[in-house]
Amino acid sequence: MIITGKHLIAGEWTQANAPTFASVNPRTKLPGANVFAEASADEIDRAVEAAAAAFTETRNYAPEQRAQFLEAVAAEIEALGDELLQVCDAETGLGLPRLTGERGRTTGQLRAFAEHVREGSYVEAIIDTALPERQPAPRPDIRRMLIPIGPVAVFSPNNFPLAFSVAGGDSASAFAAGCPVIVKGHPSHPATSELVAGAIACAVEQCGFPAGFFSLLQGAGVEVGQALVKHPRLAAVGFTGSFRGGRAIFDTAAARPKPIPVYAEMGSVNPVVILPDAVATKGDGLVSAIAGSVTLGSGQFCTNPGLIFMVDSEASSVFVGDVAKAMAAQAPGVLLNAGVEATLDRQVSRTLGKAAVTLVTGGAVAHSDGFCYANTVMQTTGAAFLDDPGLTDEHFGPVTLFVMCESLDQIKTIITRLDGNLTATVHASDAELATAGDLFDLLREICGRLILNGVPTGVEVVHAMVHGGPYPATSAPNSTSVGRTAIQRFLRPVAYQNLPDALLPDALKDANPLGIWRIVDNAHTRDAIG
Amino acid sequence: MIITGKHLIAGEWTQANAPTFASVNPRTKLPGANVFAEASADEIDRAVEAAAAAFTETRNYAPEQRAQFLEAVAAEIEALGDELLQVCDAETGLGLPRLTGERGRTTGQLRAFAEHVREGSYVEAIIDTALPERQPAPRPDIRRMLIPIGPVAVFSPNNFPLAFSVAGGDSASAFAAGCPVIVKGHPSHPATSELVAGAIACAVEQCGFPAGFFSLLQGAGVEVGQALVKHPRLAAVGFTGSFRGGRAIFDTAAARPKPIPVYAEMGSVNPVVILPDAVATKGDGLVSAIAGSVTLGSGQFCTNPGLIFMVDSEASSVFVGDVAKAMAAQAPGVLLNAGVEATLDRQVSRTLGKAAVTLVTGGAVAHSDGFCYANTVMQTTGAAFLDDPGLTDEHFGPVTLFVMCESLDQIKTIITRLDGNLTATVHASDAELATAGDLFDLLREICGRLILNGVPTGVEVVHAMVHGGPYPATSAPNSTSVGRTAIQRFLRPVAYQNLPDALLPDALKDANPLGIWRIVDNAHTRDAIG
Repeated sequence: MIITGKHLIAGEWTQANAPTFASVNPRTKLPGANVFAEASADEIDRAVEAAAAAFTETRNYAPEQRAQFLEAVAAEIEALGDELLQVCDAETGLGLPRLTGERGRTTGQLRAFAEHVREGSYVEAIIDTALPERQPAPRPDIRRMLIPIGPVAVFSPNNFPLAFSVAGGDSASAFAAGCPVIVKGHPSHPATSELVAGAIACAVEQCGFPAGFFSLLQGAGVEVGQALVKHPRLAAVGFTGSFRGGRAIFDTAAARPKPIPVYAEMGSVNPVVILPDAVATKGDGLVSAIAGSVTLGSGQFCTNPGLIFMVDSEASSVFVGDVAKAMAAQAPGVLLNAGVEATLDRQVSRTLGKAAVTLVTGGAVAHSDGFCYANTVMQTTGAAFLDDPGLTDEHFGPVTLFVMCESLDQIKTIITRLDGNLTATVHASDAELATAGDLFDLLREICGRLILNGVPTGVEVVHAMVHGGPYPATSAPNSTSVGRTAIQRFLRPVAYQNLPDALLPDALKDANPLGIWRIVDNAHTRDAIG
Repeated sequence: MIITGKHLIAGEWTQANAPTFASVNPRTKLPGANVFAEASADEIDRAVEAAAAAFTETRNYAPEQRAQFLEAVAAEIEALGDELLQVCDAETGLGLPRLTGERGRTTGQLRAFAEHVREGSYVEAIIDTALPERQPAPRPDIRRMLIPIGPVAVFSPNNFPLAFSVAGGDSASAFAAGCPVIVKGHPSHPATSELVAGAIACAVEQCGFPAGFFSLLQGAGVEVGQALVKHPRLAAVGFTGSFRGGRAIFDTAAARPKPIPVYAEMGSVNPVVILPDAVATKGDGLVSAIAGSVTLGSGQFCTNPGLIFMVDSEASSVFVGDVAKAMAAQAPGVLLNAGVEATLDRQVSRTLGKAAVTLVTGGAVAHSDGFCYANTVMQTTGAAFLDDPGLTDEHFGPVTLFVMCESLDQIKTIITRLDGNLTATVHASDAELATAGDLFDLLREICGRLILNGVPTGVEVVHAMVHGGPYPATSAPNSTSVGRTAIQRFLRPVAYQNLPDALLPDALKDANPLGIWRIVDNAHTRDAIG
């Protein structure tokens, strides 16, 4: 497959500015053969204008049309074959087994959203029929449903080059809603982005969608994204990435003359609480589960367990040592790029510079041909943690910090001071569960997903998934970026008052031609009206 | 009933600062006997801290507990008797018939939310059961529901002293969700606010809720609200009022170290399109419907029809004249306060200062003992409207602007350039409806509620109501402040992974003890699991 280095704007491959950046193979630190350019102001404008024009058609597309499009995108990604995985592996170093799985997750998400829009109840139709005899005035007929919000910008992160990137969860849920998408590709895997954009373009053409339904803009600096978010015709933003990047996008969107919602998933330290009896009863299995979760994908997951709280004891000290041993025994994995390595090194050095923090294992850039950091375990005390808010900072990589506390009460006090997280995890024996209710109550308040006796890594793409949480895990605590309810981010409600059946959308017609679940006069039903 | 002039903070009536303001009777322009103070920084802090402390209990209250509380608030408001209406009338001049109706709406909303939380399906429970045999790894059990978001600040407007104020829709939906509320009362009706706050305090005590579940802070300047929104323990804001006030609150919340969602309903010009055949066939009935809607409540409704688009013709000119005549024949009503009168006078003068705008009737402060402005009709052309974005500005009062257009196509062009509105209305004959599909398609994009052959004033409190819309109608286009789905603003999703039944909330337990509708393995059901 030929990589052009160009942007895809409403079906056309263009490149106004001269190329300035290439991806780098993280295993060799050598730049790839293809060079890419920053999208120009004119290219950004054309992409959003084309999206707005496309929206005047796609906002009225039937669910079946959107479902077929989502399936076509999945099929076109599969049709790229293993070359997609090879190009992606050369840009990310994530390895073919992981990328094969991630491709399956990506196409699975697209097909799940196809099923979701076909099923159709996601429009949350609510109907209150007229009361013509009501005194002193008749009550009108009011029917409400969710409609698509408009053109959506999607910012993809470095760590999921397929499942959270060009055709990832944000794009899939926006497409499912009927919203055109403009992706700002991540500069760490631009060739991968281009290949997937080509697949989407094929699906757009195949399905007869307007070309402006999808565009890809490349760029290595912050300017393209900032200009994109400021465009007056943009309606919403999906973002996955760093706290600094997400907050910058959020601030720009909030400062617009017409602010727009930003759904930014910005990172998380994913606290884990390991209760004493769990250590005593679960032994080696728990050691290898924790070590495996911290080092999975070189620790480059937003659900990586970065803080582990235990009650200090001889047994818990042995446990920390065992986790450190297991992690040290694993060869450290390759990191995504130079920036991840440099940032991680700076973050760990800063944490290790604190008097109350000791290094258990790792703690330095690893000798390697590629970007690499030693699997790292650090340790501190509950009292020190309470004294220093800086100890909650994320270390993005195969690194965790054990916090050895005086008591379970001290752990609970710490939890009430934690910021928002994507996940929170408890390991407990059956006996401990009986008294753990208030621990769960506290943890629930600071996370989007609460896990018992498992690990936070591995986000199931199921209907019930919540991949979100209080700030700074996300900028919008009432949303999720994984699972079927992610579609709600790109919808808004509208009510129709006294419209005749012929002018109503199918979802609201008396006969319920879509056969969806609705709430009619306060009752859940799939029945027709009248 | 004795009015103290104090704030209510977690069950205690306090006043740290000296009183500085009184409400003014809009019929006489004379100040009331009671004086009120700005809440102090310490009072604001105590109110929010008490709310946060209360939340640690109320977030786990059963639906039935919350339902009983909402019903108790309604009963306590009724127990205030007609003195509440008299105090309120003296502060607002809205008149006893209107206020009697508004009280009924207020208690009706509270009881509707009680019914809604008892029914219980609003938590949107979604369950994906485990697949222990899945390869390569078992799928965990994931169960998701909506939980309350935390302490909510409510800003009440001047124009609905009961239904959108201290115990209005924002407070009712936050209470229903289990969220403590801190109301910043509107300085135009502080005695009304105090009486209703007292009723809520009685309900709090009666139901054994923590006292911090509700507080009322008085204030006439912007400082109390700004300090409230900056408080680190606040989780969300509901606001109804002016564009300037709402945007200031939105900006402050977005600039917080930890931003929080702001649901601001900020005003709307509520475009109305009257098609030619509707004029021909509906005659006098349509004239009096439009005149009545513009002048209802002295035009002080957020759904007041401020822009009316017609195709220019002899018939439509006659129609404008007839509406003007009908409005001139009505004695102008009293306005809420000096600020409303002064702002309206400035707004209308500015609009009339434009060369392309002509005055048809009214256009000046009316001679009266009270605050009063003449019922006003202005007129311009479609071409002038397209040239001057300033012609979309709101005139808050009994004022409307007719825009006489060259053609239906010109009306459609104008619609695509309008900002967001709460409502949009079309008057059409049956014959015109057959070809009006694209008109509705365009109007839908700029509003939260689309009305056929009716008037935008009169917002039914039904399940399907959408009182929201694209910016600047609201700061959050995916929300409504009226109707049962208003509760969603104060909820966020959380997922539980592999928790045993005993530790799950009732809404997610296998047996479905609440009997609510849930989505289990992608199917809508009220059945138990297993």
